[in-house]
Amino acid sequence: MAYEFVDPETLTAKERETGAVFAPKFDLNGLILAVTSEGQTNEVLMVAYMNQEALKLTLETGFVHYYSRSRAKLWKKGETSGETQKLLQMRVDCDQDALVLTVEQTGRGAACHTGHKSCFFRKLETDGDNVRLINDQGPALFDPATVYK
Amino acid sequence: MAYEFVDPETLTAKERETGAVFAPKFDLNGLILAVTSEGQTNEVLMVAYMNQEALKLTLETGFVHYYSRSRAKLWKKGETSGETQKLLQMRVDCDQDALVLTVEQTGRGAACHTGHKSCFFRKLETDGDNVRLINDQGPALFDPATVYK
Repeated sequence: MAYEFVDPETLTAKERETGAVFAPKFDLNGLILAVTSEGQTNEVLMVAYMNQEALKLTLETGFVHYYSRSRAKLWKKGETSGETQKLLQMRVDCDQDALVLTVEQTGRGAACHTGHKSCFFRKLETDGDNVRLINDQGPALFDPATVYK
Repeated sequence: MAYEFVDPETLTAKERETGAVFAPKFDLNGLILAVTSEGQTNEVLMVAYMNQEALKLTLETGFVHYYSRSRAKLWKKGETSGETQKLLQMRVDCDQDALVLTVEQTGRGAACHTGHKSCFFRKLETDGDNVRLINDQGPALFDPATVYK
């Protein structure tokens, strides 16, 4: 298979925003935002970016690939940790510059490199002018020091 | 109230990633990503950006404010459409450069400027090499031409 994506510039705003043509808008760095949520609960697990190749590989293989900005390379989620993500569904927003992926998180069930299920394992608690972060999701599911050597 | 946020550069990586200090990392344009989901269902409604002021106003007022990149200005969600968002919870990710907001969507219940509940009202459907978008969330809840004059 070889997915070719339509150039969003060839569509009218109305076509892009409400039509049936998938024309993902990559930014100046060639990236598109991906929000990844858990299939059963819709809980947001992580946010990351995809380049064209990562998006194609995700659609072709059914396993989520991202582009790592810090490492400047394509990245199959779980390639080191074993925590792969099986794609259940992909959605696109009105202006086609963001994706929502619904996945089955494999392995120990930890999407975050800290070993937690979700990267968003801390909620804000405000008390007057003060804000602090509370981990309300319990301990990590793996030890990063062991998994990433 | 006057929230002051801690500069993430003053924290170690470990403190930033797993600690209790909220130190949001704004990008070179002074923005942080916000993913907004619905309280009851966790469904992702939209993604947008906040600058420091938008984040402070959101925490202070309990109503979600964003920064519009296209209009280059602070934006109280729903100021034109009436579709305000009441903040229920805010979470931050491991590297503190993304937020997840849980909200109660007011008005007609449409977060998207197209009049749909969610900006992600279209899912990808693949058939061999072809991808097309399907609206599986029904018709818009308001007519943008009437609401945005």
